[in-house]
Amino acid sequence: MAMKQSKTCEESRVTMTEMVLPNDTNTLNNLMGGRLMHWMDVVSAIAAQKHSNCTVVTASVDNISFTQPTQLGDVVTLKAFVTRSFKTSMEIYIEVISENIPAGESERTNSAFFTFVAVDQKGKPKKVAELTPETDKEVELFKGALRRRQLRLVLAKRMKPSDATEVKSLFMEG
Amino acid sequence: MAMKQSKTCEESRVTMTEMVLPNDTNTLNNLMGGRLMHWMDVVSAIAAQKHSNCTVVTASVDNISFTQPTQLGDVVTLKAFVTRSFKTSMEIYIEVISENIPAGESERTNSAFFTFVAVDQKGKPKKVAELTPETDKEVELFKGALRRRQLRLVLAKRMKPSDATEVKSLFMEG
Amino acid sequence: MAMKQSKTCEESRVTMTEMVLPNDTNTLNNLMGGRLMHWMDVVSAIAAQKHSNCTVVTASVDNISFTQPTQLGDVVTLKAFVTRSFKTSMEIYIEVISENIPAGESERTNSAFFTFVAVDQKGKPKKVAELTPETDKEVELFKGALRRRQLRLVLAKRMKPSDATEVKSLFMEG
Amino acid sequence: MAMKQSKTCEESRVTMTEMVLPNDTNTLNNLMGGRLMHWMDVVSAIAAQKHSNCTVVTASVDNISFTQPTQLGDVVTLKAFVTRSFKTSMEIYIEVISENIPAGESERTNSAFFTFVAVDQKGKPKKVAELTPETDKEVELFKGALRRRQLRLVLAKRMKPSDATEVKSLFMEG
Amino acid sequence: MAMKQSKTCEESRVTMTEMVLPNDTNTLNNLMGGRLMHWMDVVSAIAAQKHSNCTVVTASVDNISFTQPTQLGDVVTLKAFVTRSFKTSMEIYIEVISENIPAGESERTNSAFFTFVAVDQKGKPKKVAELTPETDKEVELFKGALRRRQLRLVLAKRMKPSDATEVKSLFMEG
Amino acid sequence: MAMKQSKTCEESRVTMTEMVLPNDTNTLNNLMGGRLMHWMDVVSAIAAQKHSNCTVVTASVDNISFTQPTQLGDVVTLKAFVTRSFKTSMEIYIEVISENIPAGESERTNSAFFTFVAVDQKGKPKKVAELTPETDKEVELFKGALRRRQLRLVLAKRMKPSDATEVKSLFMEG
Repeated sequence: MAMKQSKTCEESRVTMTEMVLPNDTNTLNNLMGGRLMHWMDVVSAIAAQKHSNCTVVTASVDNISFTQPTQLGDVVTLKAFVTRSFKTSMEIYIEVISENIPAGESERTNSAFFTFVAVDQKGKPKKVAELTPETDKEVELFKGALRRRQLRLVLAKRMKPSDATEVKSLFMEG
Repeated sequence: MAMKQSKTCEESRVTMTEMVLPNDTNTLNNLMGGRLMHWMDVVSAIAAQKHSNCTVVTASVDNISFTQPTQLGDVVTLKAFVTRSFKTSMEIYIEVISENIPAGESERTNSAFFTFVAVDQKGKPKKVAELTPETDKEVELFKGALRRRQLRLVLAKRMKPSDATEVKSLFMEG
Repeated sequence: MAMKQSKTCEESRVTMTEMVLPNDTNTLNNLMGGRLMHWMDVVSAIAAQKHSNCTVVTASVDNISFTQPTQLGDVVTLKAFVTRSFKTSMEIYIEVISENIPAGESERTNSAFFTFVAVDQKGKPKKVAELTPETDKEVELFKGALRRRQLRLVLAKRMKPSDATEVKSLFMEG
Repeated sequence: MAMKQSKTCEESRVTMTEMVLPNDTNTLNNLMGGRLMHWMDVVSAIAAQKHSNCTVVTASVDNISFTQPTQLGDVVTLKAFVTRSFKTSMEIYIEVISENIPAGESERTNSAFFTFVAVDQKGKPKKVAELTPETDKEVELFKGALRRRQLRLVLAKRMKPSDATEVKSLFMEG
Repeated sequence: MAMKQSKTCEESRVTMTEMVLPNDTNTLNNLMGGRLMHWMDVVSAIAAQKHSNCTVVTASVDNISFTQPTQLGDVVTLKAFVTRSFKTSMEIYIEVISENIPAGESERTNSAFFTFVAVDQKGKPKKVAELTPETDKEVELFKGALRRRQLRLVLAKRMKPSDATEVKSLFMEG
Repeated sequence: MAMKQSKTCEESRVTMTEMVLPNDTNTLNNLMGGRLMHWMDVVSAIAAQKHSNCTVVTASVDNISFTQPTQLGDVVTLKAFVTRSFKTSMEIYIEVISENIPAGESERTNSAFFTFVAVDQKGKPKKVAELTPETDKEVELFKGALRRRQLRLVLAKRMKPSDATEVKSLFMEG
């Protein structure tokens, strides 16, 4: 299968739905953060597969905040798509919605950025298609990806803070 | 049980060991990132419980890099302890070592920072003991916690970048 | 929350995505039928919840054929929506697509009909909203629901075959 | 191992017992239908293996009704045996009994028919032994298997309703 | 429900069948001992429930040997029944058969003795029915239960070795 | 990797920590014995791997008593190390501590002895390093290993009771 030169966000979009079962919860009957991150990893791996048509491995996960508790029996919907690709890696954006359907309650509880590397069957990185954002939101996520990437490299100590020009400007703005 | 005024890192230290089973792996027979994050969440929740003697809920997780693949059958050891406490929250440091014991190979594969909030049975935040670091490494982690906290607040859009004085200085240094 | 008089198929539509892991497979590395039925039950329960805004319990499942093997590592997408509601019960249609993404292969592997009953917290049946089909396909599914319902009742020995006028005509046609 | 020409129901009989654990239940603490179908699939696969001495794959499942709720902590016993074999496929009958043992309550909650195909290691269908029913009940199930098979083929759109003579007569009877 | 004065082994007999799945195996593709013990615990708990019509808790497990490896895809059948009851406790005998059905191989791989205590909903021990053995094998197991019980008590340091007259005689015999 | 002639207990020491989740518990919300034995098997397998630098298989488990219930939400810590090695097998001692951390309660709930055999990739037994005990407790466990081994062999009917000189003396003492 020939690799496409460029793909849209739409082509990698994935929706995953899970019901919160007893073993997913802590003693307060709330969804445990670790279970949610496991689901985020699966949904974003599928999005990365769709963009790259490759096996993929998790490269990093950005800061995630857990502000709203999700309860036993709630339905959790995770929506993911690739926001930007670099040579062999892809950034994926994930949005999480939690619903108590009988109560008619629905809330956007989390969002996250994961990065994946496309690999061959020996685990060697492979080149991936470019990403062409289409909507305004996609363009904004595409642009922000550069700054998030610098921050990742700085935090992983693979870039000097002083070279992270995109991040620096953020902190200088105000 | 009366709450101690201050506790050491030692008092919250937890070691967790897991064997990588088939369902923890992807099609390359490597441990999936999401499973590892789930284990990180459990081990750091226990450390936070030990420091606070409370039920705890995950508040956030900082950037994590996955650089070394861990294989089916490997033994994963996770070590966690509280590095600093804020009024009702705690930062936990987790170190991950992966071993292929028959091959005599052992590698420090990941590290991560999770934060937890101590809560009562209704989920309302509760005050936690202070943390007194003892060793050099503990003191360094204790100091760095302030900067990591500012970064978390900025990334969660709960602090203006310009107010994040600790983070700013980091990017101005070089 | 007041109950809506009538709802569309769109309002109950759910998409669920699962990756086939080792424990989901038999010794041929193919997805086991039982695991797929378990996923079908979860996705259709969520669709029934969305239509009824109630807790729901599985009432029956119609004949399912398994013709295409789905392999370890494949991504399975299940799409479900309510096709017709009866006093306290709902029929849900589920379509299953299996993909080997790195190979660029995608196939519609199964479809199924489940029925659910809406219940209160004591398990007593509750009245549900009507269903108004919109597209041609939805109208067709809506109409066929009567015949499938008669067949279910006959097979469960709760209706005499001779009274199942809708089913009878089917077998008389040719 | 030479294949036997014909086998009895007795030779494929399997009993499976499961205890209903928290993760098997919905928010009403009742066993989820999907979990029960998963168990049905495993027990009938073992019965089909015993009859055919082959690896087997699920080919279809007939209508199942769920009328009695089964509770958390209940013991579920599934009994299965082959009722009839066709060239490379077998029909299996499964009976489900749910017990609340401390309460001294026991109830036959479900029954189902699954069909399996015997395959070699490449997934190619293999011929299976014939089935010789012995008891009255076994003979009745053996005879009914033809009609159920026609219904399956009609429902899977692989037989014209007008050719399903066995099913037709059923609906003409009354 | 009035408690029966005495019950037979037959009345507590339970058969459980499990298929060895990937997550049940070690890196040699053999069933892990710990998983088998987990199944033994469940099947013997059900036997103890059937004898006592009570909730039961595991009190002890006797020495178990694992001599034959059981492979991925094998079918494991566990048969259990109560061999003797003491005031509030019961000894259960479990026999394990492993089968590679396609290969036509079947082997009795393990046997074990578990003891359970019958309890009420607060966990307080409750009196259980007596056990009346019927067959020769049952009588032999019934008699041996006294000696095994003494050994358990000695090993748990709840009986002085010198008081364990039944065990002593065993070692004096030869 | 050259095999060490002799190793200390320290070199095989493993700590494993688990949180008791809903699916680990019975209807009294207590940890099931079978789940605990599963964890014991994993932690002692890792200790045996560390001593032998080999793949290992469970050979036997000695009597275990379950006296204290462990509750849902409790933290269970399992500590294991090799106490003595025989030609190709090793005895492992496991200590289990259960904690209700919010309540500040901690209790040593169980101890157990497992034996493992070191094997190559075909399952053939391999020679293991000797064990040199260091502390008083380790020396005591090392000495007692002989007696426990005789008892195991007698109970597995692989040694005549009259030849079990170590065990006999135990019962003759008092």
